Amino acid sequence: MKEQQERKRLTIIGTGLIGGSLGLALKAAGLENVEIVGHDKDRGAANQAQRVGAMDRAEHNLLRAVEGASMVIIATPVLAVREVMQEIAGELVEGAVVTDTASTKAQVMQWADELLPEGVSFVGGHPMAGKETPGIEQAEATLFAGKAYCICPSLKATDGAVNSVVGLTRLMGAEPLFVDAEEHDQYAAAVSHLPLLVSTALFTLLRSSPAWADLAPMASSGFRDITRLASGDPRMSHDICVTNREAAVHWLERMAGELHRLRDVLADARDEALLETFTKAQMERDSFLAQPPVRVMEAATSTDARQELIHALVGGWMVDRMRKAQKLPELLKQREAAKGAQPGPTRAERIAEDIRRDLEKRSGRKEK
Amino acid sequence: MKEQQERKRLTIIGTGLIGGSLGLALKAAGLENVEIVGHDKDRGAANQAQRVGAMDRAEHNLLRAVEGASMVIIATPVLAVREVMQEIAGELVEGAVVTDTASTKAQVMQWADELLPEGVSFVGGHPMAGKETPGIEQAEATLFAGKAYCICPSLKATDGAVNSVVGLTRLMGAEPLFVDAEEHDQYAAAVSHLPLLVSTALFTLLRSSPAWADLAPMASSGFRDITRLASGDPRMSHDICVTNREAAVHWLERMAGELHRLRDVLADARDEALLETFTKAQMERDSFLAQPPVRVMEAATSTDARQELIHALVGGWMVDRMRKAQKLPELLKQREAAKGAQPGPTRAERIAEDIRRDLEKRSGRKEK
Repeated sequence: MKEQQERKRLTIIGTGLIGGSLGLALKAAGLENVEIVGHDKDRGAANQAQRVGAMDRAEHNLLRAVEGASMVIIATPVLAVREVMQEIAGELVEGAVVTDTASTKAQVMQWADELLPEGVSFVGGHPMAGKETPGIEQAEATLFAGKAYCICPSLKATDGAVNSVVGLTRLMGAEPLFVDAEEHDQYAAAVSHLPLLVSTALFTLLRSSPAWADLAPMASSGFRDITRLASGDPRMSHDICVTNREAAVHWLERMAGELHRLRDVLADARDEALLETFTKAQMERDSFLAQPPVRVMEAATSTDARQELIHALVGGWMVDRMRKAQKLPELLKQREAAKGAQPGPTRAERIAEDIRRDLEKRSGRKEK
Repeated sequence: MKEQQERKRLTIIGTGLIGGSLGLALKAAGLENVEIVGHDKDRGAANQAQRVGAMDRAEHNLLRAVEGASMVIIATPVLAVREVMQEIAGELVEGAVVTDTASTKAQVMQWADELLPEGVSFVGGHPMAGKETPGIEQAEATLFAGKAYCICPSLKATDGAVNSVVGLTRLMGAEPLFVDAEEHDQYAAAVSHLPLLVSTALFTLLRSSPAWADLAPMASSGFRDITRLASGDPRMSHDICVTNREAAVHWLERMAGELHRLRDVLADARDEALLETFTKAQMERDSFLAQPPVRVMEAATSTDARQELIHALVGGWMVDRMRKAQKLPELLKQREAAKGAQPGPTRAERIAEDIRRDLEKRSGRKEK
């Protein structure tokens, strides 16, 4: 592992829709003294990202791209995250922050734990935003604005590293949302991967029908919208499912069960129950849209996103030592409190405790 | 039944999203010498429709609204169509054209056959357009532009009546699509009612999960889009399902089957098959969007939509007698030809033959 250089570099690996949008958002934020370097195994994509202003410089050699970087953002499909970690591990500087954007987190956290060196902080990330159309051509600086951005700190991540990723999300206008990796994968399976699978299943079912030529001319915006996710990047969809297999299977099962319930209601001519289902769904969805549930998070974190990110990029361990920050554990506690008291320490509390102990230990032993 | 008056009146019953949009589109087309009258059992909706310019006059008495009307468009939820037909039947003038906009057609065609008097032509209609947000406030003149508009002529409908409804759809910029009522309901069940049920089931499933409070903050545009149809008018959704029960049950069953297939692929770790499913879906959906399948229809119908509608409104039976028009049967034949030769007369050919015989009979006996 090399010593951190004076140069502040932020490297984005994978310059497609997500990586490109991250770059555009960071460039739009106008970070001073920070060089944004982009790498993609598809050189054309990296060059294009540079052309559209998503980064200062495209670097086709992966190791040179991360050389001396204070922060590395891995924005590839899930399974590629592992390869990237393996390749860059030896090149990362002490105090570097590594984050990712993959749609599943437990597997990624495990790889980070196995593959990244001591002294590097991994903070998993998952922006709850996207488009079905992949590629740098679709990238937008505002893709993440107003969207939730899940943050899963590893046990070894310093508080400064966590703050820097929080700062990153805030710079893009996103709403950071702390969540345990396994919880994340369960929730994402329901609210994100199930919709992807349902969308794909519906399109596949109708497209393979012998009546397709007659059905298709009648398809309207309802059909197009509900099958939108079926046009997503197949490799990304595949990776998501195989790294969250159990949860995806579980929700597929439950969705089939719900369809069977509706089938029975219809077949048994329980028309009152049918009307009730539609009425309730409309009412509850409208109120969900009018007032989307949020977690207690905002007030607790610093609002000066730029300052946080800069500090983290510049200061590394120094910032951590000075702060002995208790912010994340507090946040996690507040969140648990907001969810109502539960018997015994929750998973989040255990993580909080781990992080606190880890920080204390480190601030004692990491003096240069 | 009363004699047709000189006054040309077009009456829209039900001035919500669909009826209001129809009115706006017809007003935008600038039909001369045609008065557009609107009725809604919700007087506020009718008044609002008049205020936004969707009709010339709101008429709160249903019978007075249809008095002397050359064309009546019933734009209510499906089950209400029956009541409306019952109530207005005695008020309709000889030669009047009645059409509807309901999402299921077989049931409506049967009601028309039972309830509407001789000398009135019923031509079922179903615009393949809409929004999940109901109400006149959401109405737009361009709602139907570029969208398919299914047309199901009843056996008793005159060719002039059919042409007038074709003219109506063309005036709004829609693409008329002739389809047998039972075929329509099968296709609509797949491409429209199944998406509605899937959307509702998915929202209901997640909303009723004990983890909802944790899931919801992670919901992004993918979840919102796929559950969009769950915000539709519950009464309308209910009516659609109960008037197309068998087909809806069939497709719910098949959709659950497809989800089980995906579940098995995932659970058995057949990851190549999974990738293939995603790849195929993306490819086929993209090509569906790039080149949506159409039916052979356009070249065959007259392009002077306004003329057709005016003729039908003004001329009634006279136009029919003069034309002995063979247009619809020809169209239906062409469509069948385009779909490839089939053994024996198809359903469409039988309808065409019925209509032709009906027209010939009528032109012989209907001289005043």
